[in-house]
Amino acid sequence: MKKKSFPLANVYGLLETGPVVLITTSHKGVANIMTQSWHTMMEFEPPLVGCVISGRNHSFDALKATKECVINIPTVELAKQVVAAGNNSGRKVDKFARTGLTAAPASLVQAPLIAECYANLECRVADTRLVNSYNFFILEVVKAWIAPAEKDPKTLHHRGKGIFMVAGESIKLLSRAK
Amino acid sequence: MKKKSFPLANVYGLLETGPVVLITTSHKGVANIMTQSWHTMMEFEPPLVGCVISGRNHSFDALKATKECVINIPTVELAKQVVAAGNNSGRKVDKFARTGLTAAPASLVQAPLIAECYANLECRVADTRLVNSYNFFILEVVKAWIAPAEKDPKTLHHRGKGIFMVAGESIKLLSRAK
Repeated sequence: MKKKSFPLANVYGLLETGPVVLITTSHKGVANIMTQSWHTMMEFEPPLVGCVISGRNHSFDALKATKECVINIPTVELAKQVVAAGNNSGRKVDKFARTGLTAAPASLVQAPLIAECYANLECRVADTRLVNSYNFFILEVVKAWIAPAEKDPKTLHHRGKGIFMVAGESIKLLSRAK
Repeated sequence: MKKKSFPLANVYGLLETGPVVLITTSHKGVANIMTQSWHTMMEFEPPLVGCVISGRNHSFDALKATKECVINIPTVELAKQVVAAGNNSGRKVDKFARTGLTAAPASLVQAPLIAECYANLECRVADTRLVNSYNFFILEVVKAWIAPAEKDPKTLHHRGKGIFMVAGESIKLLSRAK
Protein backbone atom coordinates (compact mmCIF):
# COMPACT_ATOMS: atom_id res chain seq x y z
CA MET A 1 0.00 0.00 0.00
CA LYS A 2 1.55 3.27 -1.11
CA LYS A 3 1.93 5.69 1.81
CA LYS A 4 2.62 9.35 2.26
CA SER A 5 3.62 11.37 5.29
CA PHE A 6 0.58 12.56 7.31
CA PRO A 7 0.49 15.79 9.36
CA LEU A 8 0.93 15.11 13.07
CA ALA A 9 -1.74 17.72 13.85
CA ASN A 10 -4.36 15.55 12.10
CA VAL A 11 -3.53 12.26 13.84
CA TYR A 12 -6.37 12.66 16.40
CA GLY A 13 -8.93 12.12 13.62
CA LEU A 14 -7.52 8.64 12.98
CA LEU A 15 -7.69 7.46 16.59
CA GLU A 16 -10.60 9.19 18.32
CA THR A 17 -13.14 7.01 16.48
CA GLY A 18 -11.84 4.07 18.57
CA PRO A 19 -10.46 1.67 15.93
CA VAL A 20 -8.90 -1.66 16.84
CA VAL A 21 -5.18 -1.18 16.29
CA LEU A 22 -2.18 -3.43 15.84
CA ILE A 23 0.74 -2.30 17.98
CA THR A 24 4.15 -3.43 16.75
CA THR A 25 7.33 -3.56 18.79
CA SER A 26 10.87 -4.75 18.15
CA HIS A 27 13.01 -6.08 20.96
CA LYS A 28 16.34 -7.92 20.72
CA GLY A 29 15.81 -8.29 17.00
CA VAL A 30 12.36 -9.85 17.28
CA ALA A 31 9.31 -7.98 15.98
CA ASN A 32 5.90 -8.58 17.55
CA ILE A 33 2.27 -7.56 16.94
CA MET A 34 -0.45 -6.97 19.54
CA THR A 35 -4.15 -6.35 18.91
CA GLN A 36 -5.44 -3.50 21.04
CA SER A 37 -8.53 -1.34 21.60
CA TRP A 38 -7.83 0.52 24.84
CA HIS A 39 -6.35 3.81 23.69
CA THR A 40 -7.27 7.49 23.70
CA MET A 41 -5.94 10.75 22.33
CA MET A 42 -4.56 12.97 25.10
CA GLU A 43 -3.16 15.96 23.18
CA PHE A 44 -3.47 17.31 19.63
CA GLU A 45 0.11 18.39 18.90
CA PRO A 46 2.47 16.87 19.45
CA PRO A 47 -0.08 14.03 19.38
CA LEU A 48 -0.12 12.11 22.64
CA VAL A 49 -1.89 8.75 22.88
CA GLY A 50 -2.59 6.95 26.14
CA CYS A 51 -2.86 3.18 25.88
CA VAL A 52 -3.14 0.15 28.11
CA ILE A 53 -0.71 -2.69 27.33
CA SER A 54 -1.35 -5.48 29.78
CA GLY A 55 1.63 -6.83 31.69
CA ARG A 56 0.51 -10.28 30.52
CA ASN A 57 1.42 -9.32 26.94
CA HIS A 58 4.81 -9.92 25.42
CA SER A 59 4.58 -6.38 24.00
CA PHE A 60 4.62 -4.93 27.52
CA ASP A 61 8.22 -6.03 28.09
CA ALA A 62 9.29 -4.84 24.66
CA LEU A 63 7.67 -1.43 25.09
CA LYS A 64 9.09 -0.99 28.59
CA ALA A 65 12.60 -1.90 27.41
CA THR A 66 12.73 -0.10 24.05
CA LYS A 67 10.28 2.78 24.68
CA GLU A 68 9.22 2.60 21.02
CA CYS A 69 6.32 1.12 19.08
CA VAL A 70 4.15 1.68 16.02
CA ILE A 71 0.35 1.98 16.11
CA ASN A 72 -0.95 0.43 12.87
CA ILE A 73 -4.60 0.87 11.90
CA PRO A 74 -6.16 -2.05 10.02
CA THR A 75 -9.43 -2.16 8.08
CA VAL A 76 -12.00 -4.93 7.82
CA GLU A 77 -10.11 -6.57 4.93
CA LEU A 78 -7.52 -7.56 7.57
CA ALA A 79 -10.07 -8.96 10.08
CA LYS A 80 -8.62 -12.46 9.95
CA GLN A 81 -5.11 -11.22 10.63
CA VAL A 82 -6.32 -8.92 13.44
CA VAL A 83 -7.93 -11.89 15.18
CA ALA A 84 -4.92 -14.16 14.59
CA ALA A 85 -2.60 -11.56 16.11
CA GLY A 86 -4.92 -11.25 19.12
CA ASN A 87 -5.40 -14.98 19.70
CA ASN A 88 -1.71 -15.84 20.03
CA SER A 89 1.12 -14.70 22.27
CA GLY A 90 4.34 -13.25 20.91
CA ARG A 91 6.13 -15.35 23.53
CA LYS A 92 5.26 -18.48 21.57
CA VAL A 93 4.50 -17.40 18.03
CA ASP A 94 6.13 -15.24 15.36
CA LYS A 95 3.10 -13.05 14.70
CA PHE A 96 4.32 -11.82 11.33
CA ALA A 97 4.77 -15.41 10.14
CA ARG A 98 1.44 -16.48 11.65
CA THR A 99 -0.58 -13.63 10.17
CA GLY A 100 1.28 -13.21 6.89
CA LEU A 101 1.44 -9.45 7.51
CA THR A 102 4.44 -7.59 6.09
CA ALA A 103 6.94 -5.72 8.27
CA ALA A 104 8.25 -2.55 6.66
CA PRO A 105 10.93 -0.30 8.13
CA ALA A 106 9.83 2.76 10.08
CA SER A 107 11.67 6.06 9.77
CA LEU A 108 12.31 7.06 13.39
CA VAL A 109 11.80 3.91 15.50
CA GLN A 110 13.03 0.32 15.39
CA ALA A 111 9.55 -1.22 15.54
CA PRO A 112 8.21 -2.08 12.07
CA LEU A 113 5.26 -0.62 10.17
CA ILE A 114 2.65 -3.13 9.01
CA ALA A 115 2.56 -2.53 5.26
CA GLU A 116 -1.08 -3.71 4.84
CA CYS A 117 -2.48 -1.20 7.38
CA TYR A 118 -3.73 2.05 5.85
CA ALA A 119 -2.18 4.22 8.60
CA ASN A 120 0.94 3.83 10.72
CA LEU A 121 1.94 5.99 13.68
CA GLU A 122 5.54 5.79 14.87
CA CYS A 123 5.59 6.37 18.64
CA ARG A 124 7.99 6.91 21.52
CA VAL A 125 6.99 6.47 25.16
CA ALA A 126 6.50 9.92 26.68
CA ASP A 127 5.30 9.17 30.22
CA THR A 128 5.35 5.99 32.32
CA ARG A 129 3.91 7.34 35.57
CA LEU A 130 0.80 5.15 35.36
CA VAL A 131 2.49 1.99 34.06
CA ASN A 132 2.86 0.40 37.48
CA SER A 133 -0.74 1.09 38.54
CA TYR A 134 -2.64 0.53 35.27
CA ASN A 135 -0.20 -0.68 32.56
CA PHE A 136 -0.95 2.72 31.00
CA PHE A 137 1.68 4.16 28.66
CA ILE A 138 1.54 7.68 27.23
CA LEU A 139 2.99 7.65 23.71
CA GLU A 140 4.06 10.57 21.55
CA VAL A 141 3.45 10.11 17.84
CA VAL A 142 6.67 11.26 16.19
CA LYS A 143 5.89 10.34 12.58
CA ALA A 144 2.66 9.38 10.81
CA TRP A 145 2.01 7.65 7.47
CA ILE A 146 -1.22 7.24 5.53
CA ALA A 147 -2.34 5.53 2.32
CA PRO A 148 -3.92 8.37 0.32
CA ALA A 149 -5.95 5.84 -1.71
CA GLU A 150 -7.94 4.84 1.40
CA LYS A 151 -10.63 7.54 1.39
CA ASP A 152 -13.21 5.79 3.59
CA PRO A 153 -11.44 3.29 5.87
CA LYS A 154 -13.70 0.50 7.15
CA THR A 155 -12.03 0.27 10.55
CA LEU A 156 -12.93 -2.38 13.14
CA HIS A 157 -14.34 -1.45 16.57
CA HIS A 158 -14.56 -4.13 19.24
CA ARG A 159 -17.89 -4.52 21.05
CA GLY A 160 -16.58 -7.38 23.22
CA LYS A 161 -16.54 -11.15 22.93
CA GLY A 162 -15.51 -11.27 19.29
CA ILE A 163 -18.21 -8.91 18.01
CA PHE A 164 -16.71 -6.13 15.91
CA MET A 165 -18.54 -3.10 14.58
CA VAL A 166 -17.35 -2.09 11.11
CA ALA A 167 -17.13 1.66 10.44
CA GLY A 168 -20.25 2.86 8.65
CA GLU A 169 -21.00 5.97 6.64
CA SER A 170 -19.61 9.39 7.52
CA ILE A 171 -21.80 12.44 8.02
CA LYS A 172 -20.89 16.12 8.26
CA LEU A 173 -22.36 18.05 11.16
CA LEU A 174 -22.09 21.74 11.97
CA SER A 175 -19.68 21.08 14.80
CA ARG A 176 -17.16 23.64 16.01
CA ALA A 177 -15.00 20.81 17.33
CA LYS A 178 -11.44 20.68 16.08
CA MET B 1 -36.33 5.33 26.97
CA LYS B 2 -36.91 2.41 29.32
CA LYS B 3 -33.67 1.33 31.00
CA LYS B 4 -32.46 -1.64 32.97
CA SER B 5 -29.39 -2.16 35.11
CA PHE B 6 -26.38 -3.34 33.07
CA PRO B 7 -23.59 -5.58 34.43
CA LEU B 8 -20.47 -3.58 35.27
CA ALA B 9 -18.33 -6.39 33.84
CA ASN B 10 -19.79 -5.72 30.36
CA VAL B 11 -19.28 -1.95 30.32
CA TYR B 12 -16.04 -2.20 28.29
CA GLY B 13 -18.05 -3.34 25.25
CA LEU B 14 -19.95 -0.04 25.25
CA LEU B 15 -16.89 2.19 25.33
CA GLU B 16 -14.03 0.47 23.53
CA THR B 17 -15.61 1.12 20.13
CA GLY B 18 -14.84 4.81 20.70
CA PRO B 19 -18.28 6.46 20.68
CA VAL B 20 -18.76 10.18 21.15
CA VAL B 21 -20.17 10.56 24.66
CA LEU B 22 -22.02 13.24 26.57
CA ILE B 23 -20.55 13.73 30.03
CA THR B 24 -22.92 15.25 32.57
CA THR B 25 -21.95 16.91 35.83
CA SER B 26 -23.84 18.71 38.57
CA HIS B 27 -22.19 21.44 40.60
CA LYS B 28 -23.81 23.91 43.00
CA GLY B 29 -27.21 22.83 41.74
CA VAL B 30 -26.41 23.41 38.06
CA ALA B 31 -26.26 20.46 35.65
CA ASN B 32 -24.05 20.62 32.60
CA ILE B 33 -23.33 18.53 29.48
CA MET B 34 -20.03 18.16 27.63
CA THR B 35 -19.44 16.40 24.29
CA GLN B 36 -16.34 14.21 24.48
CA SER B 37 -14.39 11.63 22.45
CA TRP B 38 -11.08 11.24 24.30
CA HIS B 39 -11.69 8.28 26.58
CA THR B 40 -10.42 4.71 26.99
CA MET B 41 -11.19 1.67 29.09
CA MET B 42 -8.42 0.98 31.61
CA GLU B 43 -9.77 -2.00 33.57
CA PHE B 44 -12.61 -4.51 33.13
CA GLU B 45 -13.97 -4.77 36.66
CA PRO B 46 -14.54 -2.60 38.42
CA PRO B 47 -14.65 -0.74 35.10
CA LEU B 48 -12.15 2.10 34.97
CA VAL B 49 -12.35 4.74 32.25
CA GLY B 50 -9.64 7.28 31.56
CA CYS B 51 -10.79 10.53 29.97
CA VAL B 52 -9.47 13.94 29.09
CA ILE B 53 -11.63 16.87 30.21
CA SER B 54 -9.93 20.07 29.11
CA GLY B 55 -9.36 22.72 31.74
CA ARG B 56 -11.05 25.14 29.33
CA ASN B 57 -14.35 23.29 29.85
CA HIS B 58 -16.86 24.23 32.52
CA SER B 59 -17.16 20.49 33.26
CA PHE B 60 -13.52 20.39 34.41
CA ASP B 61 -14.29 22.53 37.45
CA ALA B 62 -17.44 20.57 38.26
CA LEU B 63 -15.68 17.22 38.01
CA LYS B 64 -12.73 18.41 40.07
CA ALA B 65 -15.01 19.75 42.80
CA THR B 66 -17.67 17.01 42.95
CA LYS B 67 -15.63 13.99 41.77
CA GLU B 68 -18.77 12.63 40.08
CA CYS B 69 -20.17 12.51 36.56
CA VAL B 70 -22.24 10.40 34.19
CA ILE B 71 -21.03 9.15 30.81
CA ASN B 72 -24.05 9.09 28.50
CA ILE B 73 -23.82 7.38 25.10
CA PRO B 74 -25.92 8.95 22.33
CA THR B 75 -26.84 7.51 18.94
CA VAL B 76 -27.11 9.23 15.56
CA GLU B 77 -30.73 10.24 16.25
CA LEU B 78 -29.26 12.72 18.77
CA ALA B 79 -26.62 14.13 16.38
CA LYS B 80 -28.10 17.64 16.49
CA GLN B 81 -28.10 17.68 20.30
CA VAL B 82 -24.55 16.27 20.47
CA VAL B 83 -23.30 19.10 18.26
CA ALA B 84 -25.29 21.73 20.16
CA ALA B 85 -23.82 20.53 23.45
CA GLY B 86 -20.32 20.67 21.95
CA ASN B 87 -20.66 24.08 20.33
CA ASN B 88 -21.60 25.96 23.51
CA SER B 89 -20.01 26.44 26.93
CA GLY B 90 -21.78 25.56 30.15
CA ARG B 91 -20.40 28.80 31.54
CA LYS B 92 -22.79 30.76 29.32
CA VAL B 93 -25.58 28.36 28.37
CA ASP B 94 -27.93 25.93 30.14
CA LYS B 95 -27.10 22.93 27.96
CA PHE B 96 -30.21 21.01 28.90
CA ALA B 97 -32.40 23.95 27.89
CA ARG B 98 -30.36 24.56 24.72
CA THR B 99 -30.41 20.93 23.56
CA GLY B 100 -33.85 19.92 24.84
CA LEU B 101 -32.32 16.80 26.39
CA THR B 102 -33.96 15.43 29.53
CA ALA B 103 -32.13 15.15 32.87
CA ALA B 104 -33.15 12.10 34.88
CA PRO B 105 -31.94 11.28 38.39
CA ALA B 106 -28.99 8.90 38.76
CA SER B 107 -28.90 6.32 41.52
CA LEU B 108 -25.47 6.82 43.10
CA VAL B 109 -24.24 10.24 41.92
CA GLN B 110 -25.64 13.78 41.82
CA ALA B 111 -24.96 14.27 38.09
CA PRO B 112 -28.01 13.51 35.95
CA LEU B 113 -28.56 10.77 33.40
CA ILE B 114 -29.57 11.93 29.92
CA ALA B 115 -32.84 10.09 29.37
CA GLU B 116 -32.55 10.04 25.55
CA CYS B 117 -29.16 8.26 25.57
CA TYR B 118 -29.36 4.47 25.25
CA ALA B 119 -26.67 3.87 27.90
CA ASN B 120 -25.66 5.78 31.03
CA LEU B 121 -22.62 5.11 33.20
CA GLU B 122 -22.57 6.64 36.68
CA CYS B 123 -18.96 7.44 37.60
CA ARG B 124 -16.81 8.57 40.49
CA VAL B 125 -13.30 9.96 40.07
CA ALA B 126 -10.83 7.22 41.07
CA ASP B 127 -7.44 8.79 40.32
CA THR B 128 -6.37 12.39 39.66
CA ARG B 129 -2.61 11.89 39.36
CA LEU B 130 -2.53 12.97 35.71
CA VAL B 131 -5.04 15.82 35.96
CA ASN B 132 -2.42 18.53 36.36
CA SER B 133 -0.26 17.30 33.46
CA TYR B 134 -2.91 16.18 30.95
CA ASN B 135 -6.41 17.00 32.31
CA PHE B 136 -6.71 13.19 32.49
CA PHE B 137 -9.22 11.81 34.99
CA ILE B 138 -9.56 8.11 35.81
CA LEU B 139 -13.21 7.33 36.52
CA GLU B 140 -14.71 4.24 38.12
CA VAL B 141 -18.10 3.23 36.73
CA VAL B 142 -20.20 2.48 39.81
CA LYS B 143 -23.56 1.87 38.13
CA ALA B 144 -24.57 1.26 34.52
CA TRP B 145 -27.94 1.51 32.73
CA ILE B 146 -28.95 0.37 29.28
CA ALA B 147 -32.06 0.50 27.08
CA PRO B 148 -32.69 -3.17 26.23
CA ALA B 149 -34.68 -2.13 23.15
CA GLU B 150 -31.52 -0.70 21.52
CA LYS B 151 -30.04 -3.83 19.96
CA ASP B 152 -27.81 -2.19 17.36
CA PRO B 153 -26.85 1.30 18.55
CA LYS B 154 -25.81 3.65 15.75
CA THR B 155 -23.20 5.46 17.80
CA LEU B 156 -21.25 8.49 16.53
CA HIS B 157 -17.46 8.45 16.15
CA HIS B 158 -15.65 11.73 15.51
CA ARG B 159 -13.17 11.80 12.61
CA GLY B 160 -12.29 15.45 13.27
CA LYS B 161 -13.57 18.78 11.93
CA GLY B 162 -17.25 17.91 12.21
CA ILE B 163 -17.06 14.64 10.26
CA PHE B 164 -18.67 11.81 12.24
CA MET B 165 -18.56 8.11 11.37
CA VAL B 166 -21.82 6.36 12.18
CA ALA B 167 -21.52 2.81 13.55
CA GLY B 168 -22.01 0.28 10.75
CA GLU B 169 -22.81 -3.43 10.75
CA SER B 170 -21.47 -5.81 13.38
CA ILE B 171 -19.57 -8.98 12.48
CA LYS B 172 -18.63 -11.96 14.64
CA LEU B 173 -15.02 -13.11 14.45
CA LEU B 174 -13.35 -16.10 16.09
CA SER B 175 -11.59 -13.90 18.60
CA ARG B 176 -10.50 -15.11 22.02
CA ALA B 177 -10.64 -11.53 23.25
CA LYS B 178 -12.82 -10.87 26.28
